[in-house]
Amino acid sequence: MGAESLDLLREKLQQDPFARALGIRLLLLEKGLARLEMPLGEHTRNFLGMTHGAAIFALADQAFAAACNSHGERSVAFNVTISFLAPPRGDRLVAEARELSRSKNVGVYHIQVNDADGSAVAEVQGLAYRRSERT
Amino acid sequence: MGAESLDLLREKLQQDPFARALGIRLLLLEKGLARLEMPLGEHTRNFLGMTHGAAIFALADQAFAAACNSHGERSVAFNVTISFLAPPRGDRLVAEARELSRSKNVGVYHIQVNDADGSAVAEVQGLAYRRSERT
Amino acid sequence: MGAESLDLLREKLQQDPFARALGIRLLLLEKGLARLEMPLGEHTRNFLGMTHGAAIFALADQAFAAACNSHGERSVAFNVTISFLAPPRGDRLVAEARELSRSKNVGVYHIQVNDADGSAVAEVQGLAYRRSERT
Amino acid sequence: MGAESLDLLREKLQQDPFARALGIRLLLLEKGLARLEMPLGEHTRNFLGMTHGAAIFALADQAFAAACNSHGERSVAFNVTISFLAPPRGDRLVAEARELSRSKNVGVYHIQVNDADGSAVAEVQGLAYRRSERT
Repeated sequence: MGAESLDLLREKLQQDPFARALGIRLLLLEKGLARLEMPLGEHTRNFLGMTHGAAIFALADQAFAAACNSHGERSVAFNVTISFLAPPRGDRLVAEARELSRSKNVGVYHIQVNDADGSAVAEVQGLAYRRSERT
Repeated sequence: MGAESLDLLREKLQQDPFARALGIRLLLLEKGLARLEMPLGEHTRNFLGMTHGAAIFALADQAFAAACNSHGERSVAFNVTISFLAPPRGDRLVAEARELSRSKNVGVYHIQVNDADGSAVAEVQGLAYRRSERT
Repeated sequence: MGAESLDLLREKLQQDPFARALGIRLLLLEKGLARLEMPLGEHTRNFLGMTHGAAIFALADQAFAAACNSHGERSVAFNVTISFLAPPRGDRLVAEARELSRSKNVGVYHIQVNDADGSAVAEVQGLAYRRSERT
Repeated sequence: MGAESLDLLREKLQQDPFARALGIRLLLLEKGLARLEMPLGEHTRNFLGMTHGAAIFALADQAFAAACNSHGERSVAFNVTISFLAPPRGDRLVAEARELSRSKNVGVYHIQVNDADGSAVAEVQGLAYRRSERT
């Protein structure tokens, strides 16, 4: 995927309706690597007053989607596993997705979600299936 | 957890800020069992025009939270695994969470997410840690 | 898959070298459903004197393989998630694998592992990819 | 955990009955890091003639156990997720487990399993619960 294609993907990601509603912003996108952030606030809370697990997942999943589509082939998530370590502190989360390995049709990604202090909030592993069509 | 406590939990769940923003509604809540629905629309789409995986996860996770807190002890998610089967059709999703088993401190839940046609969209397994405090 | 094909699969499973070494026995095999048992002993212990998590996994995985190959199409495991609930008591484990759902290429299975007392030891979710070739 | 304690853990791991039966050998053990290898052969095959997924898991799980017990506190696996990438080639597998992060009670580990060619065979994420007792 050339620099132009990455630019196109960046633009598309910024317009993702679900991610936009959560204020998710793309910080970095390279082949097999993506970094995104999300502000925390009232809208990301659950009924116990904590950050909702699904908000943490949303940021991780968006980072996963960015990284696994960075090769120019359209990829679809098959399985995602998230382990929650500790409730976040501070006003935002940062997620970084990295490609662990790729076979012909399948790619595996690790996504780490940290809070504003740099403390680990969640560790995520995602499995994606690659299709031959262009993104 | 008596009927009154379940009523209290129902009320709290309806006020969950993250779930409310997605239009998630509680359909049924009993001990170890919860059914919820979520409308699909522009706000649940990803940059490829499909339903965002994190929107599907959000509904499943909320059903998981409802079921694992239905015993009156506060439970925290440790690990959630989601397998995506097929893109949803129709205008809403329904998730049903069921307790598979419980040991002293840990509970495991299965959450199935179906679309409006009743076709399976995702299968989820959640592991929760129970604390002794009351919810 | 007709009755003859299920008989053939039963025979193949009984000859699985890895499963045989662990003493795994097939108790039941139908379309989308399998039940197997494994004796516990010195050979299934870990360095802490407990039943090895990988021994528990081995029984679950064999049940998963039996169930997901019971339709006559060769299936390959893509992802397996195991949650451990409690150490087993007694001298054997029983695992039951059940098909949760199937789309065109993908099937999801739930496998429950119980000990001799019928207490839950592990809950497992498996994702398999189906190929068109016959088993 | 001092050097002596790591020596003690190394010795215990070498005597693990389940791992010994599979020929698993410890190559490296440091705090939060472990590398192990396992020979492939007839005994690690499944009924389709391929390396059994549970054999691959066994090596990964043993590496996980080594790494998560390397701090001198006894740790118990709660959840393990394995994604299979490609069938292994060659006569052995190598697994490396690395600590991703640790909170007060919980640790998350990534385990990569490669074949003799260095090609990725499986990617694994493990969640462990720490107890206060010494190993």
